[in-house]
Amino acid sequence: MDEKQLLKENERIDQLSAQGIRIIQSPEVFAFSLDAVLLADFVRPNAKPRLKTVDLCAGNGAVGLFLNRKLGGEIVEVELQERLADMARRSVALNGLTDRYRVLTLDVKEVYRQLKKDQYDVVTCNPPYFTSRPTSAKNPNPYLALARHELTIDLAGVVEKMSGLLKMTGKAYLVHRPDRLAEILATLTANRLEPKRMRLIYPKPGREANMVLIEAIKDGKPGGLRVVPPLVVADEQGNYRPEVVAMLHGH
Amino acid sequence: MDEKQLLKENERIDQLSAQGIRIIQSPEVFAFSLDAVLLADFVRPNAKPRLKTVDLCAGNGAVGLFLNRKLGGEIVEVELQERLADMARRSVALNGLTDRYRVLTLDVKEVYRQLKKDQYDVVTCNPPYFTSRPTSAKNPNPYLALARHELTIDLAGVVEKMSGLLKMTGKAYLVHRPDRLAEILATLTANRLEPKRMRLIYPKPGREANMVLIEAIKDGKPGGLRVVPPLVVADEQGNYRPEVVAMLHGH
Repeated sequence: MDEKQLLKENERIDQLSAQGIRIIQSPEVFAFSLDAVLLADFVRPNAKPRLKTVDLCAGNGAVGLFLNRKLGGEIVEVELQERLADMARRSVALNGLTDRYRVLTLDVKEVYRQLKKDQYDVVTCNPPYFTSRPTSAKNPNPYLALARHELTIDLAGVVEKMSGLLKMTGKAYLVHRPDRLAEILATLTANRLEPKRMRLIYPKPGREANMVLIEAIKDGKPGGLRVVPPLVVADEQGNYRPEVVAMLHGH
Repeated sequence: MDEKQLLKENERIDQLSAQGIRIIQSPEVFAFSLDAVLLADFVRPNAKPRLKTVDLCAGNGAVGLFLNRKLGGEIVEVELQERLADMARRSVALNGLTDRYRVLTLDVKEVYRQLKKDQYDVVTCNPPYFTSRPTSAKNPNPYLALARHELTIDLAGVVEKMSGLLKMTGKAYLVHRPDRLAEILATLTANRLEPKRMRLIYPKPGREANMVLIEAIKDGKPGGLRVVPPLVVADEQGNYRPEVVAMLHGH
């Protein structure tokens, strides 16, 4: 396969060597961030060959692709924006994964048009983080504005669909901002998703957390949340710490 | 003052030198734990001379006493068990603080019998952590059983009173177990207490969090929770880390 033929204007191929994945990115349109790497890292491995996974708000497909070695079975990526879904589809092809990955251009609000309820073992999501108010500053790049701001769907909408897609005892994985933690946990429990494992991500020593990873179990027994050791992403000088280097480049 | 006269059988005086406080303890009845030190450390200083503070579930008065140098004004300690309230009262005397401390032997459920609603600037609480089921193992020491298990009051009961005592924009400080975090945050928000600052406490490197400290503002605007840097209490060998040593013994 001539890889160049897979690329459109201003696109490039980046590598997540730790996962053996190459991914089509475009600085002008969308490039995955550390959030996607951390979310995929947080997912528990499950090699079951009949496993069924959905990644919502998939962007250019990074989270789903990074789960390639961790999860068996079928992985469906759901992305609203055709321009991003198209990048994800070409990345799936680039990695030779068309047999077990599907990329759907689909609004999460209408996800049941193409995916059945109560069928999935794992649902991941790196949703838009920022609430959208008429006055709030948005990214002038429309692709990024949709990916980062709750313009077409909000947290409650995303979580409702995560829960609806999951089987009983299926696992939801979410990355979000800790400033909304009370709302996040309340929204999960209101949607039959019991938070069971959480990790706080701090950018540097001595700084406040800027990300939170949450695993929730559909219809899990209330309580019993485990807060696993924190991750401090970089040292004082801004260099990635060894755990992050390992996520990106392998050991 | 002859300090010996202040002590009853099997009691001793311990020192929190970082706060210049001496406190009457009894291994058979009740001795404060690191939780009380961490909670007091987490409270923001406020020297206002008219400040009004309540500590609920005060035990032998440790949290309130440790706030001596941080908070101005009046501090009221509320403890259900007369044996513990009596220790707290004698510790207040031992430290020469009778002019601004009061210790009430009082059930938190009936706190409005002696304290007015909507009057306090700060309410702290180190409540019983463990839900009480008929089958659950309880401490055979009845003093500790009441202090640790939700025998006479549960989380919702405590939080309701914390909120009721506080003025608008007053601050609630709670130490609890992270396994109940979803319930804790939901209970706070259901009682007009918006979580605004949180700190996770990990016993050692690589271990899960075993305590959480939360500051909530009465009628605070929803969202905006800040997760401040984590505290890892001890190193791999079990020795307290410098930040904890400083809390206990000063710099």
